[in-house]
Amino acid sequence: MRFDVLVEIRLRPGIADPQGATIERALPALGFDGFSHVGVGKAIRFNLDAADEMAARTSVDELCQRFLANPVIEEAEVSLSPGATTL
Amino acid sequence: MRFDVLVEIRLRPGIADPQGATIERALPALGFDGFSHVGVGKAIRFNLDAADEMAARTSVDELCQRFLANPVIEEAEVSLSPGATTL
Repeated sequence: MRFDVLVEIRLRPGIADPQGATIERALPALGFDGFSHVGVGKAIRFNLDAADEMAARTSVDELCQRFLANPVIEEAEVSLSPGATTL
Repeated sequence: MRFDVLVEIRLRPGIADPQGATIERALPALGFDGFSHVGVGKAIRFNLDAADEMAARTSVDELCQRFLANPVIEEAEVSLSPGATTL
Protein backbone atom coordinates (compact mmCIF):
# COMPACT_ATOMS: atom_id res chain seq x y z
CA MET A 1 0.00 0.00 0.00
CA ARG A 2 1.35 3.38 -0.94
CA PHE A 3 1.12 6.49 1.22
CA ASP A 4 1.76 10.15 0.52
CA VAL A 5 3.65 11.56 3.46
CA LEU A 6 4.37 15.14 4.47
CA VAL A 7 6.77 15.75 7.34
CA GLU A 8 6.90 19.29 8.65
CA ILE A 9 10.02 20.02 10.66
CA ARG A 10 9.92 23.14 12.78
CA LEU A 11 12.02 24.60 15.54
CA ARG A 12 10.84 23.91 19.07
CA PRO A 13 9.29 26.87 20.91
CA GLY A 14 12.04 29.00 22.45
CA ILE A 15 14.72 28.06 19.93
CA ALA A 16 16.01 31.13 18.06
CA ASP A 17 14.82 31.36 14.46
CA PRO A 18 16.97 33.99 12.71
CA GLN A 19 15.50 33.21 9.31
CA GLY A 20 11.94 33.77 10.53
CA ALA A 21 12.96 36.86 12.48
CA THR A 22 14.60 38.38 9.41
CA ILE A 23 11.51 37.82 7.27
CA GLU A 24 9.26 39.28 9.97
CA ARG A 25 11.45 42.36 10.34
CA ALA A 26 11.58 42.96 6.58
CA LEU A 27 7.86 42.63 5.82
CA PRO A 28 6.55 46.05 7.00
CA ALA A 29 9.15 47.86 4.88
CA LEU A 30 8.04 45.77 1.89
CA GLY A 31 4.42 46.82 2.34
CA PHE A 32 3.12 43.76 4.19
CA ASP A 33 1.52 44.53 7.53
CA GLY A 34 -0.08 42.34 10.18
CA PHE A 35 2.37 39.45 10.05
CA SER A 36 3.75 38.04 13.29
CA HIS A 37 5.34 34.91 14.74
CA VAL A 38 7.07 34.04 11.48
CA GLY A 39 8.83 30.68 11.66
CA VAL A 40 10.73 28.88 8.93
CA GLY A 41 11.01 25.10 8.87
CA LYS A 42 11.33 22.26 6.41
CA ALA A 43 8.64 20.42 4.49
CA ILE A 44 9.71 16.95 3.39
CA ARG A 45 7.38 15.00 1.10
CA PHE A 46 7.71 11.42 -0.05
CA ASN A 47 5.86 8.26 -1.01
CA LEU A 48 6.12 5.23 1.21
CA ASP A 49 5.20 1.64 0.43
CA ALA A 50 4.12 -0.12 3.61
CA ALA A 51 1.80 -2.95 4.65
CA ASP A 52 -0.68 -0.70 6.45
CA GLU A 53 -1.02 2.76 7.97
CA MET A 54 0.36 1.71 11.35
CA ALA A 55 3.51 0.23 9.80
CA ALA A 56 3.93 3.37 7.70
CA ARG A 57 3.52 5.67 10.69
CA THR A 58 5.99 3.68 12.80
CA SER A 59 8.57 3.78 10.02
CA VAL A 60 8.14 7.52 9.41
CA ASP A 61 8.26 8.36 13.13
CA GLU A 62 11.53 6.47 13.52
CA LEU A 63 12.96 8.13 10.42
CA CYS A 64 12.06 11.57 11.80
CA GLN A 65 13.58 10.90 15.19
CA ARG A 66 16.78 9.44 13.79
CA PHE A 67 17.52 11.42 10.66
CA LEU A 68 15.09 14.06 9.45
CA ALA A 69 14.83 16.14 12.62
CA ASN A 70 17.26 17.07 15.31
CA PRO A 71 15.10 16.25 18.35
CA VAL A 72 17.13 18.59 20.56
CA ILE A 73 15.94 21.70 18.72
CA GLU A 74 13.31 20.51 16.25
CA GLU A 75 9.94 18.81 16.30
CA ALA A 76 8.34 16.88 13.46
CA GLU A 77 4.70 16.69 12.46
CA VAL A 78 3.73 13.81 10.19
CA SER A 79 0.73 13.89 7.83
CA LEU A 80 0.06 10.60 6.13
CA SER A 81 -2.58 9.93 3.48
CA PRO A 82 -3.25 6.80 1.43
CA GLY A 83 -3.03 6.88 -2.32
CA ALA A 84 -0.26 7.68 -4.73
CA THR A 85 0.25 10.97 -6.44
CA THR A 86 3.19 11.85 -8.58
CA LEU A 87 5.39 14.38 -6.90
CA MET B 1 -9.23 38.76 12.76
CA ARG B 2 -6.22 36.58 13.22
CA PHE B 3 -5.25 33.66 10.99
CA ASP B 4 -2.74 30.85 11.36
CA VAL B 5 -1.00 30.43 8.05
CA LEU B 6 1.20 27.66 6.73
CA VAL B 7 2.97 28.19 3.42
CA GLU B 8 4.59 25.13 1.92
CA ILE B 9 7.20 25.95 -0.71
CA ARG B 10 8.27 23.11 -2.93
CA LEU B 11 10.23 22.76 -6.11
CA ARG B 12 8.20 22.54 -9.31
CA PRO B 13 8.03 19.12 -10.95
CA GLY B 14 11.10 18.57 -13.13
CA ILE B 15 13.38 20.86 -11.13
CA ALA B 16 16.39 18.96 -9.73
CA ASP B 17 16.18 18.36 -5.98
CA PRO B 18 19.67 17.26 -4.83
CA GLN B 19 18.70 17.37 -1.15
CA GLY B 20 15.75 15.04 -1.68
CA ALA B 21 17.78 12.78 -3.97
CA THR B 22 20.53 12.45 -1.36
CA ILE B 23 18.07 11.50 1.37
CA GLU B 24 16.37 8.98 -0.91
CA ARG B 25 19.69 7.38 -1.87
CA ALA B 26 20.83 7.13 1.75
CA LEU B 27 17.69 5.57 3.25
CA PRO B 28 18.07 1.91 2.17
CA ALA B 29 21.58 1.75 3.63
CA LEU B 30 20.18 3.16 6.89
CA GLY B 31 17.56 0.43 7.11
CA PHE B 32 14.58 2.33 5.71
CA ASP B 33 12.95 0.69 2.71
CA GLY B 34 9.99 1.63 0.57
CA PHE B 35 10.63 5.37 0.36
CA SER B 36 10.46 7.11 -3.00
CA HIS B 37 9.94 10.54 -4.57
CA VAL B 38 11.59 12.33 -1.67
CA GLY B 39 11.35 16.10 -2.01
CA VAL B 40 12.59 18.76 0.38
CA GLY B 41 10.94 22.15 0.59
CA LYS B 42 10.25 24.90 3.09
CA ALA B 43 7.44 25.25 5.60
CA ILE B 44 6.82 28.84 6.65
CA ARG B 45 4.34 29.48 9.45
CA PHE B 46 3.02 32.79 10.70
CA ASN B 47 0.07 34.64 12.15
CA LEU B 48 -1.68 37.25 10.08
CA ASP B 49 -4.10 39.93 11.22
CA ALA B 50 -6.52 40.74 8.41
CA ALA B 51 -10.10 41.96 7.99
CA ASP B 52 -11.40 38.68 6.60
CA GLU B 53 -10.24 35.44 5.00
CA MET B 54 -10.27 36.85 1.49
CA ALA B 55 -8.06 39.79 2.46
CA ALA B 56 -5.71 37.41 4.27
CA ARG B 57 -5.48 35.07 1.30
CA THR B 58 -4.81 37.90 -1.14
CA SER B 59 -2.06 39.26 1.07
CA VAL B 60 -0.42 35.85 1.56
CA ASP B 61 -0.62 34.99 -2.15
CA GLU B 62 1.10 38.24 -3.07
CA LEU B 63 3.76 37.69 -0.41
CA CYS B 64 4.46 34.19 -1.76
CA GLN B 65 4.73 35.36 -5.35
CA ARG B 66 6.96 38.31 -4.52
CA PHE B 67 9.20 37.13 -1.70
CA LEU B 68 8.72 33.69 -0.19
CA ALA B 69 8.93 31.60 -3.35
CA ASN B 70 10.93 31.88 -6.53
CA PRO B 71 8.10 31.33 -9.03
CA VAL B 72 10.52 30.22 -11.73
CA ILE B 73 11.43 27.04 -9.85
CA GLU B 74 9.13 26.87 -6.86
CA GLU B 75 5.42 26.65 -6.15
CA ALA B 76 3.67 27.66 -2.94
CA GLU B 77 0.69 26.06 -1.25
CA VAL B 78 -1.13 28.18 1.33
CA SER B 79 -3.15 26.73 4.21
CA LEU B 80 -5.04 29.31 6.19
CA SER B 81 -7.08 28.71 9.32
CA PRO B 82 -8.83 31.18 11.61
CA GLY B 83 -7.89 31.44 15.25
CA ALA B 84 -4.69 32.24 17.02
CA THR B 85 -2.30 29.72 18.43
CA THR B 86 1.04 30.56 19.90
CA LEU B 87 3.83 29.43 17.64
